[in-house]
Amino acid sequence: MSGSSFGKLFQITTWGESHGKGVGVVVDGCPPGIEMNESVIQEMLDRRRPGGSITSTSRKESDTAKILSGVFENQTTGTPMMIMVENRDAKSSAYNSIADIYRPGHGDFSYQAKYGIRDWRGGGRSSARETVGRVAAGAVANAVLKKENIEVIAHTIALGSIKAKTFDQQAIHKNMFLCADKQAAKLMKEEVARVKAEGDSLGGIVEIRAKNIPPGLGEPVFDKLDADLAKALMSIGAVKGVEIGSGFSAATLRGSENNDPISPDGFLSNNAGGILAGISNGDEIIVRVAVKPIPSISIEQETIDKGNNPTQIKIQGRHDISAIPRINVVCEAMVNLVLVDHLMRQRAIQ
Amino acid sequence: MSGSSFGKLFQITTWGESHGKGVGVVVDGCPPGIEMNESVIQEMLDRRRPGGSITSTSRKESDTAKILSGVFENQTTGTPMMIMVENRDAKSSAYNSIADIYRPGHGDFSYQAKYGIRDWRGGGRSSARETVGRVAAGAVANAVLKKENIEVIAHTIALGSIKAKTFDQQAIHKNMFLCADKQAAKLMKEEVARVKAEGDSLGGIVEIRAKNIPPGLGEPVFDKLDADLAKALMSIGAVKGVEIGSGFSAATLRGSENNDPISPDGFLSNNAGGILAGISNGDEIIVRVAVKPIPSISIEQETIDKGNNPTQIKIQGRHDISAIPRINVVCEAMVNLVLVDHLMRQRAIQ
Amino acid sequence: MSGSSFGKLFQITTWGESHGKGVGVVVDGCPPGIEMNESVIQEMLDRRRPGGSITSTSRKESDTAKILSGVFENQTTGTPMMIMVENRDAKSSAYNSIADIYRPGHGDFSYQAKYGIRDWRGGGRSSARETVGRVAAGAVANAVLKKENIEVIAHTIALGSIKAKTFDQQAIHKNMFLCADKQAAKLMKEEVARVKAEGDSLGGIVEIRAKNIPPGLGEPVFDKLDADLAKALMSIGAVKGVEIGSGFSAATLRGSENNDPISPDGFLSNNAGGILAGISNGDEIIVRVAVKPIPSISIEQETIDKGNNPTQIKIQGRHDISAIPRINVVCEAMVNLVLVDHLMRQRAIQ
Amino acid sequence: MSGSSFGKLFQITTWGESHGKGVGVVVDGCPPGIEMNESVIQEMLDRRRPGGSITSTSRKESDTAKILSGVFENQTTGTPMMIMVENRDAKSSAYNSIADIYRPGHGDFSYQAKYGIRDWRGGGRSSARETVGRVAAGAVANAVLKKENIEVIAHTIALGSIKAKTFDQQAIHKNMFLCADKQAAKLMKEEVARVKAEGDSLGGIVEIRAKNIPPGLGEPVFDKLDADLAKALMSIGAVKGVEIGSGFSAATLRGSENNDPISPDGFLSNNAGGILAGISNGDEIIVRVAVKPIPSISIEQETIDKGNNPTQIKIQGRHDISAIPRINVVCEAMVNLVLVDHLMRQRAIQ
Repeated sequence: MSGSSFGKLFQITTWGESHGKGVGVVVDGCPPGIEMNESVIQEMLDRRRPGGSITSTSRKESDTAKILSGVFENQTTGTPMMIMVENRDAKSSAYNSIADIYRPGHGDFSYQAKYGIRDWRGGGRSSARETVGRVAAGAVANAVLKKENIEVIAHTIALGSIKAKTFDQQAIHKNMFLCADKQAAKLMKEEVARVKAEGDSLGGIVEIRAKNIPPGLGEPVFDKLDADLAKALMSIGAVKGVEIGSGFSAATLRGSENNDPISPDGFLSNNAGGILAGISNGDEIIVRVAVKPIPSISIEQETIDKGNNPTQIKIQGRHDISAIPRINVVCEAMVNLVLVDHLMRQRAIQ
Repeated sequence: MSGSSFGKLFQITTWGESHGKGVGVVVDGCPPGIEMNESVIQEMLDRRRPGGSITSTSRKESDTAKILSGVFENQTTGTPMMIMVENRDAKSSAYNSIADIYRPGHGDFSYQAKYGIRDWRGGGRSSARETVGRVAAGAVANAVLKKENIEVIAHTIALGSIKAKTFDQQAIHKNMFLCADKQAAKLMKEEVARVKAEGDSLGGIVEIRAKNIPPGLGEPVFDKLDADLAKALMSIGAVKGVEIGSGFSAATLRGSENNDPISPDGFLSNNAGGILAGISNGDEIIVRVAVKPIPSISIEQETIDKGNNPTQIKIQGRHDISAIPRINVVCEAMVNLVLVDHLMRQRAIQ
Repeated sequence: MSGSSFGKLFQITTWGESHGKGVGVVVDGCPPGIEMNESVIQEMLDRRRPGGSITSTSRKESDTAKILSGVFENQTTGTPMMIMVENRDAKSSAYNSIADIYRPGHGDFSYQAKYGIRDWRGGGRSSARETVGRVAAGAVANAVLKKENIEVIAHTIALGSIKAKTFDQQAIHKNMFLCADKQAAKLMKEEVARVKAEGDSLGGIVEIRAKNIPPGLGEPVFDKLDADLAKALMSIGAVKGVEIGSGFSAATLRGSENNDPISPDGFLSNNAGGILAGISNGDEIIVRVAVKPIPSISIEQETIDKGNNPTQIKIQGRHDISAIPRINVVCEAMVNLVLVDHLMRQRAIQ
Repeated sequence: MSGSSFGKLFQITTWGESHGKGVGVVVDGCPPGIEMNESVIQEMLDRRRPGGSITSTSRKESDTAKILSGVFENQTTGTPMMIMVENRDAKSSAYNSIADIYRPGHGDFSYQAKYGIRDWRGGGRSSARETVGRVAAGAVANAVLKKENIEVIAHTIALGSIKAKTFDQQAIHKNMFLCADKQAAKLMKEEVARVKAEGDSLGGIVEIRAKNIPPGLGEPVFDKLDADLAKALMSIGAVKGVEIGSGFSAATLRGSENNDPISPDGFLSNNAGGILAGISNGDEIIVRVAVKPIPSISIEQETIDKGNNPTQIKIQGRHDISAIPRINVVCEAMVNLVLVDHLMRQRAIQ
């Protein structure tokens, strides 16, 4: 399986560059008979659209999803679904000045090193716009999981120096940061304003929770559920870290503190994050990802050009201040994709 | 590819349970003409052997590697190598008492939920003993990478509450904790003694560094180098978190702080951990993993039996206090495996 | 990897139904720096277009290929190429009458059994129109192979009862049957006229030859070159048999007849069809496929409807008399795809 | 997935050379709870043992199967099964004389070209002895399929010039050629005696039938059931052709003859060989393979040595006259493996 495909049974293959003709995904292996139409996809895509948040670029993308195959009379047929979004509002000329310059923190240098050629317009394939395909596919996965009552939700637990201190699920979709702590959300707004004024950018931490997971998902010893979640989430451009349950804090806990005691009614704590020995234990799955600050900043930076000459760069134009909150729905999508794939793998051995 | 296989071109498949007849690995796809014999494997295996450290079980395993195929006249032939270690010192009877009880923090419950049957002797397939196959395969990967001058080294940066504060590579193999800070190593020894007396166990953090990596390794957008490293490392039993470069601390940095400026002589910092947009940038690769405390403790814990009746358990017998330092060579092995696979993938497109 | 994907390193994923919005393919893993534009694809697609031969349907399809990603400044970039053709001249209403009837020799019954739902319009996913994606991808593979001087050519060696008796490569593209024996081609024309008048259809045999193959391609013991060729070709709808070199006639030869003696200048015969022990030996690769007669005939046939009631069917409308010669370019495409994938796999171990 | 692995969910990985320490297989992805022990494997292995037939070598191999993992209390646990057979009666010295000579019809030349090194002892990896792993894995697959009442049987329909003319399933295991026509079997015995006296060898045709196949198996458009069967069977060393149902004879049939009419009670004929559009239709699956004559003959042949000098070779020692009937159980094994994998894939989407 090549690098643009993900999933073993529920397999997606994304394609497209930021400023090419479009972006999209082929979803192959989806079970037949799932209710499906373009609005199912669109609803999810709208959540990653820029311009929906003060952290985001003002680039206007209609991002209208079209399903070109695999659906008949509003049902999936079990054959591959091609879902695409045309690129419309792409101003490539804005990128002319950086055609020969490697932007710090971006993939310009490494793409050039790998392929000897790169589509520099808007970051080409390394653009966050590639996640359109992931989110569209995630919407299909979500439709399958809904039949099992499985629910996946991402929320922001840190943005720059601001940390969420409480968890109120109802609050998440009531603030632009998708934060479950509405007080923290207010502080985040101030933080963003400060950083924007400075021409700088912010990182943060997103937590993803998945409920109603049947025990038994995950395939030891390499396709463990946590291993596949780690890969899925780390494959998102801005993510630099992934942890499950107690995660990095487990390093400082004793066994007697980190072990989750078991009672006839279930686990009495959830340091495991819902996964034991790589297999879901029926408890809520809890994963967190570290999101690095957007590398495109208008502050001057040292860099080089293709000829290895030193130069400086200030990145102008429309750029997000933080990948959060647009990345949140991408995280949900990736978790949905891992879960549906493992659900199907588990069905296969039963 | 099923769950016990890893790697796309350099593919390994591990097999074996803790108290079965043996454990091992098939390495398929290794380039031909690599110098190979059993001592290459043995040297690596000896580093994961229990009894070599005060944190480890006193179980004596000779762990003698046998290569049964794929090597001819001390060279790899390009055909699959089967490497195995027989199980000898396995006292299954010590586990009789827990045949019907789910140990907290272990995979007993989740394995039973998945398969409806489990080999409870010593944890069966979920035992750390499975990593024998990983380490043996990692030794083969390492032999391939050596020809490219690539070097992978793991060191302990935290054990329980003790953190390494300096980095002296020479120190790593001079203390039993594989810590690059010899002062910290002394404190770790005291920490372990304390915890052992309490019948408890410890977690920690291991950092893996890989040098002389050619730029260009990694396959966007899903088989990114960092994504595959995250999966590889998270698939190790005790690992609950993985981060690359600045990792979780990137969440609190500004773009202007986290971006690595570029000069004609290379990157001026390495927050990226050697990977940009999922592709190696030629800089040192830096990854850290969170290791949870060993779940087997002699302190009494609440749990249930197979009939869902509440019970208590104290785990007696030979158990490590921490997966560190035995896990370090396993981490090295997994990183070696990812690197060799991506090296070969990159060759394929050239 | 799901069922609509093929290839390990040079991976294609086709999508689309006969009467949906379009058909296409994602080509992932193509080496960068290959000269590419839509005319490279179009030239190949034009060879499978209906209406180009007296054996073919009069359905007019412009089949205009669009490349939506993966190409920049007329070169492949190493990122996935999405190539699509819109469906325009699809008269679905012509199929209304068979929405609930299983056509003999078609996949109507088996698709329904598998998925519980099927897009019956024009055969849906099981239509030969799916091969548009294969041919487009084959054109890309062909562009890579050309750099190695590798050439793949398919020719018709039998159509119904008419067999080619001579081989003149120059003749192949000078007759509508792509037959290397121009005398046989004339007889084929008469055979087709006879069968068409009867409302019946014809099968035949296509031979594919590949020249300038470097020795060493093929991955024992399952991904042998002949095994992958067999799969690739048998996956084409109308193909019911595949043979390599002496093929089925090897069954009646003695070892002394079938073995190819070797001289310092190469093999003295080619019963092996260019493949020994699953690995190319440097000789010409020779494969033949059995093509069944088109199942859509206007002669009345016994069948059942979805309710398992007996009924009769005469298939009217535009249908080919034989899959030959349109299938020939599809065979070439599949062989090109296998060869490029194995070329890349071999590079990876060197 | 590397070349020594086969199957998507029920994945096998074979290892071992003819004269190395052993041969075997890892079976990963087998459903848990299947009754299993070494005699299940042994029974199947005994059927491929040399010395059991007048066509076979007199090499005595005990071929005792050991299961080293994946089975607990006589049941599969869902974890990988390692099954191995030690090599005992391997007289490598008999091969010394051909260490530097390429045997016609063998993989000596192509292996050397691919890897630059080869284990020449007994053919190394390209030896038919590799099929021990396939047969052992096929026995496991067979145990899973038995629960679904699926039965796979191979019989010889041609040996050299002798063809079976009747089909009496009871006769198959009553003659040494596994021929369903006992009269033909007698003639085969005479044919073998003649050819043996000449120091030559024979090919033939084996037919494999699979009964009680549920409709719906097969994954369009590349992992069609017939495509995977073709790959599975063509990957067997001596096989040079594969055909399904009417196969190559379909080339001369009209559509009205080749189509299978459908009645409320099922298909009225079976030219499809039980597969329509790549998906099982519930009818018996019928596949035939062309088996080339054994290349090792004692008649002198022209060849070259490693230095490209012309030389002659007469292959002495213990060699089969025909791969039939030992290959028959290997064919059954490969068909079993394809069927179990597709059965599991179909379960996954339901």
